[in-house]
Amino acid sequence: MVYLTRKEHFNAAHQVVNPKWSEEKNKDVFGKCANKNWHGHNYDLYVTVKGNPNPETGFIMNVKELSLIIKDQVLNKLDHKNLNLDVPEMKDKFPTTENLSIEIWKMLEPYISECKLHCVKLWETDNIYTEYFGE
Amino acid sequence: MVYLTRKEHFNAAHQVVNPKWSEEKNKDVFGKCANKNWHGHNYDLYVTVKGNPNPETGFIMNVKELSLIIKDQVLNKLDHKNLNLDVPEMKDKFPTTENLSIEIWKMLEPYISECKLHCVKLWETDNIYTEYFGE
Amino acid sequence: MVYLTRKEHFNAAHQVVNPKWSEEKNKDVFGKCANKNWHGHNYDLYVTVKGNPNPETGFIMNVKELSLIIKDQVLNKLDHKNLNLDVPEMKDKFPTTENLSIEIWKMLEPYISECKLHCVKLWETDNIYTEYFGE
Amino acid sequence: MVYLTRKEHFNAAHQVVNPKWSEEKNKDVFGKCANKNWHGHNYDLYVTVKGNPNPETGFIMNVKELSLIIKDQVLNKLDHKNLNLDVPEMKDKFPTTENLSIEIWKMLEPYISECKLHCVKLWETDNIYTEYFGE
Amino acid sequence: MVYLTRKEHFNAAHQVVNPKWSEEKNKDVFGKCANKNWHGHNYDLYVTVKGNPNPETGFIMNVKELSLIIKDQVLNKLDHKNLNLDVPEMKDKFPTTENLSIEIWKMLEPYISECKLHCVKLWETDNIYTEYFGE
Amino acid sequence: MVYLTRKEHFNAAHQVVNPKWSEEKNKDVFGKCANKNWHGHNYDLYVTVKGNPNPETGFIMNVKELSLIIKDQVLNKLDHKNLNLDVPEMKDKFPTTENLSIEIWKMLEPYISECKLHCVKLWETDNIYTEYFGE
Repeated sequence: MVYLTRKEHFNAAHQVVNPKWSEEKNKDVFGKCANKNWHGHNYDLYVTVKGNPNPETGFIMNVKELSLIIKDQVLNKLDHKNLNLDVPEMKDKFPTTENLSIEIWKMLEPYISECKLHCVKLWETDNIYTEYFGE
Repeated sequence: MVYLTRKEHFNAAHQVVNPKWSEEKNKDVFGKCANKNWHGHNYDLYVTVKGNPNPETGFIMNVKELSLIIKDQVLNKLDHKNLNLDVPEMKDKFPTTENLSIEIWKMLEPYISECKLHCVKLWETDNIYTEYFGE
Repeated sequence: MVYLTRKEHFNAAHQVVNPKWSEEKNKDVFGKCANKNWHGHNYDLYVTVKGNPNPETGFIMNVKELSLIIKDQVLNKLDHKNLNLDVPEMKDKFPTTENLSIEIWKMLEPYISECKLHCVKLWETDNIYTEYFGE
Repeated sequence: MVYLTRKEHFNAAHQVVNPKWSEEKNKDVFGKCANKNWHGHNYDLYVTVKGNPNPETGFIMNVKELSLIIKDQVLNKLDHKNLNLDVPEMKDKFPTTENLSIEIWKMLEPYISECKLHCVKLWETDNIYTEYFGE
Repeated sequence: MVYLTRKEHFNAAHQVVNPKWSEEKNKDVFGKCANKNWHGHNYDLYVTVKGNPNPETGFIMNVKELSLIIKDQVLNKLDHKNLNLDVPEMKDKFPTTENLSIEIWKMLEPYISECKLHCVKLWETDNIYTEYFGE
Repeated sequence: MVYLTRKEHFNAAHQVVNPKWSEEKNKDVFGKCANKNWHGHNYDLYVTVKGNPNPETGFIMNVKELSLIIKDQVLNKLDHKNLNLDVPEMKDKFPTTENLSIEIWKMLEPYISECKLHCVKLWETDNIYTEYFGE
């Protein structure tokens, strides 16, 4: 079994606030991330699949096809978007890197058929990333 | 003369539209950057100063002081902000990387006294950056 | 379960010698790392925790709190220090990247309460890193 | 148990075609990678071993020795070579990153004796890598 | 005047030999780069233009247009190609990074009209790059 | 004229103090860099030369030769050393990045004969670098 990873990129605006909390408590917990006029990030997304190389191609899956699936199913929905306002999958969810990596897994998983989705890794800044393995 | 560069980081939301144009023309020219709900970036900022090492310290200027000036004069105004709504210096200006690097120069220049500001370099994504040398 | 990683940075001096060995054998085994006048590194430290997102925040744990714990418990002890002379936890231990990652785990583990510490990853140079998972 | 990783680098030419297929089908599946005049890559290779630190050195294994093994057993065979023509181990195999990481594992595994080989990770471009764990 | 840089990427095979020299002298001077079966690289290309921001857009030039020009005029000719065999512009020239950066300048210069081409910077590996400023 | 840059790497220990000052003033100005037990860094060194490609090779100068000169003249003196104690060229000088880049220029300049030394660029951490152009 070999693991194959493809990196893609998107950028987006967001805001992290708990609507049930006061402005003060939101500032306390979420700091500058609660700015009501939004802020944003360049997100680096690494998608890992696993499987055995196909004897006809030497590929687990064609990495160009993997790239197209990521573009169609994820980047189309998230790139240059507002994660709070423009993305139905994130509705009523905190747009944290944690939740975003879980939703990206759900967007991708049904479309990986030749091999298995193994990990969604999402960098929010150069200093923070999350990983989700589907369970 | 030696050149000294300090890297800092901020992230922000923005939108690039020409209010005098139709929505169609804005989409044509600015593409996804015109999304009315904003998008955002992680910006990497490199500030270069030049001068001769001080014989008492071996420094052109104390890089910690340079870092503090950048934080006070630039990051305080731009980090986790909306470049169109929250930054007076960018009012009525397109928040492009070009214009942003010129404004950052103006924010910094009066505070560099021991040596000279040489360059403001601003990465908007891993693939795009601008440089401004003050003229 | 989601994994969250925070990157921090410190730099330090050290020397790797076995005091029971001759100078010659030390040079043989440790090469330039045995220089008696010390040498040093920029260390990049990646700390990974794992858990389920808190329904009140969308966070496994607040990454700013994680950053503060790393600063208080690790960077305060190691940053701009001599790993052989200034760090009680490293006394009588070879200050190799292997041992250092184990000690950093021990420094952090008691302070991660909301979720679980998963991995300490430590880059000594761009070409060498170690990982420790607590067992 | 600690994991230790060493990064090395090589560059090589290759071509990915299935000789049983028509030129058209090859272009369809392998795209520009099928160019009959070859193309090439800078490969970044990360080799991870695992074990317990030796009480005489604080090392799982001497990273310089690991580096020498990688140079002798892998880089000598692959660096500045044509993966289709110059490498006996790749004969009659598709020189995909998947297959290449499996062959690199086989080249290294017999020479890691003090501790255990854990992972071969191979970056083909900044956006694609594979990992092989030996099974 | 502001400087704007766009990064693009291609990979290619090549071989550096002087056909007037013996195999031995070629090995002496060009080392492993003379391998007759080719080797290859991932090239990172940074193209810098300079000008004044357009008052209608805040752009020196639209960076998407710059990207398209690079793709049309440079990447189409070089990506996944053999620099010795597939590129008419490199015929009878040593495909060194030096010469390649000069030829890339010539490919681009006629197509930059709104502002001025300032620099072609070409990374051959993580440790080597050349810059050409057109004179 | 083309510019060619080679990256090399070394690590070293140092300490920045002014011996004419009190311990307090040193801490005030140099902060943690004044730690009397030393600290250290991984230094990334970029050396740029400029010239016209040699018609026999397509090279400004052979980059392997440039690498050897840097190793012989600079890394031999600085790598895994204490910049305050082990380096005659730095005696009685503050081992700041500023001064170090000037001394590296002096070490290299007499050995670059085929073309001209243009710039010494020295990264002390990921956030700080200096450049020296020889005047």
